[in-house]
Amino acid sequence: MVDRRIILSAADMPRKWYNLAADMPWKIPPYMDPDTLEPVGPDKLAAIFPPPLLEQEVSTQRWIDIPEDVLDVLSIWRPSPLVRATRLEAALDTPAHIYYKNESVSPPGSHKPNTAVAQAYFNKVSGIRNLTTETGAGQWGSALAFACRLLDLQCKVYMVKVSYEQKPYRRNLMQVWGAECVASPSNETESGRAVLARDPDCLGSLGIAISEAVEVAAQSPDINYSLGSVLNHVMLHQSVIGLETQKQLEKAGESADILIGCCGGGSNFAGLAFPFVPQKLEGKDIQIIATEPTACPTMTRGQYRYDYGDTSKMTPLIKMMTLGHSFVPAGIHAGGLRYHGMAPMVSLLIENGVMEPRSYHQNAAFQAAITFAHTEGILPAPETSHAIVATIEEAKRCKEEGVEKCIVMNFSGHGHFDLAAYDKYLNEGLTDHVHPGEAIDAAMAELPDIE
Amino acid sequence: MVDRRIILSAADMPRKWYNLAADMPWKIPPYMDPDTLEPVGPDKLAAIFPPPLLEQEVSTQRWIDIPEDVLDVLSIWRPSPLVRATRLEAALDTPAHIYYKNESVSPPGSHKPNTAVAQAYFNKVSGIRNLTTETGAGQWGSALAFACRLLDLQCKVYMVKVSYEQKPYRRNLMQVWGAECVASPSNETESGRAVLARDPDCLGSLGIAISEAVEVAAQSPDINYSLGSVLNHVMLHQSVIGLETQKQLEKAGESADILIGCCGGGSNFAGLAFPFVPQKLEGKDIQIIATEPTACPTMTRGQYRYDYGDTSKMTPLIKMMTLGHSFVPAGIHAGGLRYHGMAPMVSLLIENGVMEPRSYHQNAAFQAAITFAHTEGILPAPETSHAIVATIEEAKRCKEEGVEKCIVMNFSGHGHFDLAAYDKYLNEGLTDHVHPGEAIDAAMAELPDIE
Repeated sequence: MVDRRIILSAADMPRKWYNLAADMPWKIPPYMDPDTLEPVGPDKLAAIFPPPLLEQEVSTQRWIDIPEDVLDVLSIWRPSPLVRATRLEAALDTPAHIYYKNESVSPPGSHKPNTAVAQAYFNKVSGIRNLTTETGAGQWGSALAFACRLLDLQCKVYMVKVSYEQKPYRRNLMQVWGAECVASPSNETESGRAVLARDPDCLGSLGIAISEAVEVAAQSPDINYSLGSVLNHVMLHQSVIGLETQKQLEKAGESADILIGCCGGGSNFAGLAFPFVPQKLEGKDIQIIATEPTACPTMTRGQYRYDYGDTSKMTPLIKMMTLGHSFVPAGIHAGGLRYHGMAPMVSLLIENGVMEPRSYHQNAAFQAAITFAHTEGILPAPETSHAIVATIEEAKRCKEEGVEKCIVMNFSGHGHFDLAAYDKYLNEGLTDHVHPGEAIDAAMAELPDIE
Repeated sequence: MVDRRIILSAADMPRKWYNLAADMPWKIPPYMDPDTLEPVGPDKLAAIFPPPLLEQEVSTQRWIDIPEDVLDVLSIWRPSPLVRATRLEAALDTPAHIYYKNESVSPPGSHKPNTAVAQAYFNKVSGIRNLTTETGAGQWGSALAFACRLLDLQCKVYMVKVSYEQKPYRRNLMQVWGAECVASPSNETESGRAVLARDPDCLGSLGIAISEAVEVAAQSPDINYSLGSVLNHVMLHQSVIGLETQKQLEKAGESADILIGCCGGGSNFAGLAFPFVPQKLEGKDIQIIATEPTACPTMTRGQYRYDYGDTSKMTPLIKMMTLGHSFVPAGIHAGGLRYHGMAPMVSLLIENGVMEPRSYHQNAAFQAAITFAHTEGILPAPETSHAIVATIEEAKRCKEEGVEKCIVMNFSGHGHFDLAAYDKYLNEGLTDHVHPGEAIDAAMAELPDIE
């Protein structure tokens, strides 16, 4: 019997995070203050982030130690398995070797706790006892709730009201882990009250929820804010994914030809891909494919420009692939991929051709997810399905071309909390939204003109 | 760092099932025909079960080969991890070593596919292409749907109507794996139509759903029926749990002093415990604790008697611990533990004092589940929580007595599809139902008088 799961022991767990900034041949543009158009100093961000995370954000040190207490919590589910998808290979009749890194095995069910645990820890050692954050569908909120519970911090999550009401299970999960979950807009903050004054029935948005969480953190020295993607330190914490994958491929006697991940803010994709980037920069032939929904085509249609990270323009300006902060994507089921921007480091690599973006419609993604569930047995999150559709595409290409490539995909999360979306796909049918070209043009016209 | 997860490789996977019938010092009473009061011959059951499963049902062969095709599907998630619950130990400040066997890592989220895959396989090699079954909350139905999909069989699940309507996610999960899921009572069977004629608004029951599934299987030579617990061959298939656990304990240098599992029909508990029973029969000091809800106290309040396996008296008579087939337990959230009977082999061992039953109220079980989620991070199913409460009780006793015992618990399933129950527990509060003594007496009075 083939040992389809390549398992590492705790002794094989990475003890250091890999920081791609050390090997990046292009300068990572600084965050800019929208008022002064000068680079934002760390002092400005110190109200909401602890010093160790601000240091990591700008560090160019190649390897950064993972603290023992972080390793201890990560070891609940890490190292995660790398799985040879033999049944998918057989169904596709492909000569390709398909592997998936299973990040869905964490208690919250995705890659998100890799950074949530680290962020909770560095806040804790900096004397912070309370974290705030925002969440849409609830994947990030539940990861931070989990991390805070295991590290004994208080956690408050501003959850977009429409999700709070329509998706009670993710909210319940946060509650199980002891987090306080508040429907946003709330009456607890100035930002929330201002919105409610204008529109008492407002269903909320991620932008509003961010404003509430940041406001609470900024106003109190005991409370910090935590962000689940986009920022450099988040990419750093996710590097355990790729570092483990490298050891596992070596154990299997394989060398990756193609790496594939889905991109919302970019963190699970970066987690898998960044540790492989130096080899590619040195000339190794590795194709690195970043996938996204056609309804929110940040990387395939966006521009590499300075833009705000949020819709309400509270963040510094970030140089990144963006569709414009005012762009509102259609209500696709892959809620985690509905972000107008992209991690600055991922953006820089795409701009320089190191990584290749592709977009897919949601019906294609769900169809790929069903194929995966029917062959490999496990149920993917709608976000993850955008990586699966590209994986199947590449495996079919290998068959056509008769080449035995090694494809490695990041299985970023399971779909246990997304069954309402599967229900709609299977029983009602989903819409493939038209390419939002005009809406993007309109949003891009609002961008500040900074070089 | 402690390696809290004891992982086996595929090479360590058991290649044979262990059959406790070979080592049982007491005769296992045969199933009886209610009309003739004679033992039921295999021919009577051949209409709904394939020959290999009927052979296993009465086999006294100690070791039975696991077919390669079954191993291949099991290897998607097996061997499952044995985890040292170091954080729970620390929170309880106990000298006990607590281990949990994590059966929640299977794609359907519980131990159920261990037998579902085997049953689908033996039906397939017997020329059967369709299986029917019943499901209440959906855990067994989704396990059989998964197994049938991976082995290319058709699967039809009669789901109790009230669950079909109130718990759409488990139903969606079955659909993802290609199973046809029908609300029971349905118009598709005589049993269903008879019920609907009397009561068009009937919400269904497990008894009615069994009748429908069995009727469809009995009437067609191409269709068989599959049962997820109680029967001897189900206990056999679950023995992989205990066999793996023995190897893992050896690897950890441990010897089990206490084994704990929750019991609905008895299969996850038997799966963990049966491979340890010979040692206990030979005099080794192992405490084996079977837990159940106070609202359905089959083992702590039932009698060891011949009774029907279903409420509608369609099954043969089975000698087992029973509350009476007409007993209807209160609507506790651990739906998988609401069964009036108990596996005959588990019953026989309880009757002879080899295993020790205990009952708990659901609030105590949920409280234990929250403690587990706060320390070990993962979310237990309400059924599993009945094992956790006993585990915590024993660990506290170890502290009081100052003894370092090794406690091994079966973590039979996760609670990802039970968050509505957690919501009620956390936000509304649950009722601890009074001990149903009088209702049990009434149900027991209806039992046939057979020795």
